[in-house]
Amino acid sequence: MNIAEIFQPINDDLQRVEECLQDSADVNIPLVAELLNYVTQSGGKRLRPALTLLCGKACNYNLDALVPMAAATEILHTATLVHDDIIDHAELRRGKPAVYRKWGESTALLLGDYMFAKAGSLAAQTGNLRVVSIFSQTLMTISGGELGQIGIDYNLNQAVDRYYRWIDAKTASLFTMATECGAVLSGCNEDIINVLYDYGHNLGMAFQIIDDILDFVGDKATLGKPVGSDLSEGTVTLPSIMFVLAHRDDTLIKSIVKDKKRDRSTVQRAVEKIKSSGVIEDCFKIATNYCSRACRDLDKIQDPSVRDMLQNLADYVTRRNK
Amino acid sequence: MNIAEIFQPINDDLQRVEECLQDSADVNIPLVAELLNYVTQSGGKRLRPALTLLCGKACNYNLDALVPMAAATEILHTATLVHDDIIDHAELRRGKPAVYRKWGESTALLLGDYMFAKAGSLAAQTGNLRVVSIFSQTLMTISGGELGQIGIDYNLNQAVDRYYRWIDAKTASLFTMATECGAVLSGCNEDIINVLYDYGHNLGMAFQIIDDILDFVGDKATLGKPVGSDLSEGTVTLPSIMFVLAHRDDTLIKSIVKDKKRDRSTVQRAVEKIKSSGVIEDCFKIATNYCSRACRDLDKIQDPSVRDMLQNLADYVTRRNK
Repeated sequence: MNIAEIFQPINDDLQRVEECLQDSADVNIPLVAELLNYVTQSGGKRLRPALTLLCGKACNYNLDALVPMAAATEILHTATLVHDDIIDHAELRRGKPAVYRKWGESTALLLGDYMFAKAGSLAAQTGNLRVVSIFSQTLMTISGGELGQIGIDYNLNQAVDRYYRWIDAKTASLFTMATECGAVLSGCNEDIINVLYDYGHNLGMAFQIIDDILDFVGDKATLGKPVGSDLSEGTVTLPSIMFVLAHRDDTLIKSIVKDKKRDRSTVQRAVEKIKSSGVIEDCFKIATNYCSRACRDLDKIQDPSVRDMLQNLADYVTRRNK
Repeated sequence: MNIAEIFQPINDDLQRVEECLQDSADVNIPLVAELLNYVTQSGGKRLRPALTLLCGKACNYNLDALVPMAAATEILHTATLVHDDIIDHAELRRGKPAVYRKWGESTALLLGDYMFAKAGSLAAQTGNLRVVSIFSQTLMTISGGELGQIGIDYNLNQAVDRYYRWIDAKTASLFTMATECGAVLSGCNEDIINVLYDYGHNLGMAFQIIDDILDFVGDKATLGKPVGSDLSEGTVTLPSIMFVLAHRDDTLIKSIVKDKKRDRSTVQRAVEKIKSSGVIEDCFKIATNYCSRACRDLDKIQDPSVRDMLQNLADYVTRRNK
């Protein structure tokens, strides 16, 4: 099943989330309106808002609260990307120039701040304080996680653990926010909230590992950014870590990460070496395992159609090519 | 009265806000703890948290909710300064190197994000959704206001109006958040909430005008930053605007702002010219007028000691030298 087929049962409601995103960009400061349109209308998959809606379907579907929360999730996600691109000096985002490239760093910084606030305001619109707290906690986890990466000496023996903690903070935390808030807002009991929290966590971990795999094996046009982007920014993800763990005397990855030798041909050689080494398949198995774990307790959800949608979404995450 | 005397009746409660700020810096990521201590323990006046407490005293003083809100106000304020310093390329903040100068732009950017979230989480801790919404709205006003300044052609005829809108968004909005939330959390009726909102707005306007005056007539050691900082960053505030309006053929300010001639001696000459022109006194009168307006409806507050404290604080704002 492709993503459009999986989301088909919630299509009308996702459309309401789109309208909420468009309303959020309807601001009487022309530059802010232009910027918000640029970042919210650039072809995101809307995976996180869909998760909020799908998890809401597990209990008493409360669309009036779910729609602003789903929009808050997407806006928070996009805001972190706007700030991340400044930090990572990324050129492209979803195939278009990153905001800071087009409008400058100050504008991108302020836009991110504005979007955090807008997302917080939408979370408050749900009228649910637990959800508002989860929202703030998630942004603390994301920014605290990035800060925790700074100035840490590289230690190969701790690299895998550190990688998992990092992707948990930067990606899985937003997935759990999406699923937990969906469940909370629809009045699920704590047991079901936990099931959906775990689902979000494991799905988010799988999603990020696949993202990091696609940075090696994906297609530039489909991804909207060049292959090998992570290595060319000196970012070490699971494929590189597993390659170096299996080839401790290799010097190519080290020269890129430590000695900052990041020209196109060096990065391209490293990408090819990692692709032909078998670690991509190992990483893929790890991602698939996370997806299995995501679904292990879904039978606690009564509605079989909701179970199926969540299962199909987990299957999609490991099969996706962008 | 000095500020210590004005705050004397709420000293113990301000101490609880200090403890809340220290607890907020007690994070198990060493760099985050170090950064939070650096920015929250650097001798701020705690004016905004004090406003929240003082306004709470106007009705049913609800300290358990007021303390986290007062801390949220201070943390939000400090977070905006951390981001502002990146944008303005400021060297010093409260006499110490700005965060981005000491730890780099990425760290300062992420620290600000973390602090927005921490402040939001403290606002949620009050258990009051109205206050949470005001919090988000304030951050939207601050960042939206800054974004609204970008790329606007300079027009002398609109300069004063634009200045007022700008300081309303960047400074007065935080003051109204502090006063309105204090009133809301202590169960004031809408009439008193409005009185305290207006008090916060007018006090904030006066506070920023005095700040901008002090940038010309203040003392470097007392201010914690060099005199003429605004002009040397190309920032036009009320004294410069009023000077140019009164001396339309002057070319010195224009050479600093438009032609970016911002060496120390040019800025120093402009500072002296503005100081000896009489506009500082005009600006001071405008600030004093705002303070009078801040206090015009305070007689609606029943408790005379609260009225006195708010009146004394307004008097202090126009007399302060830092």
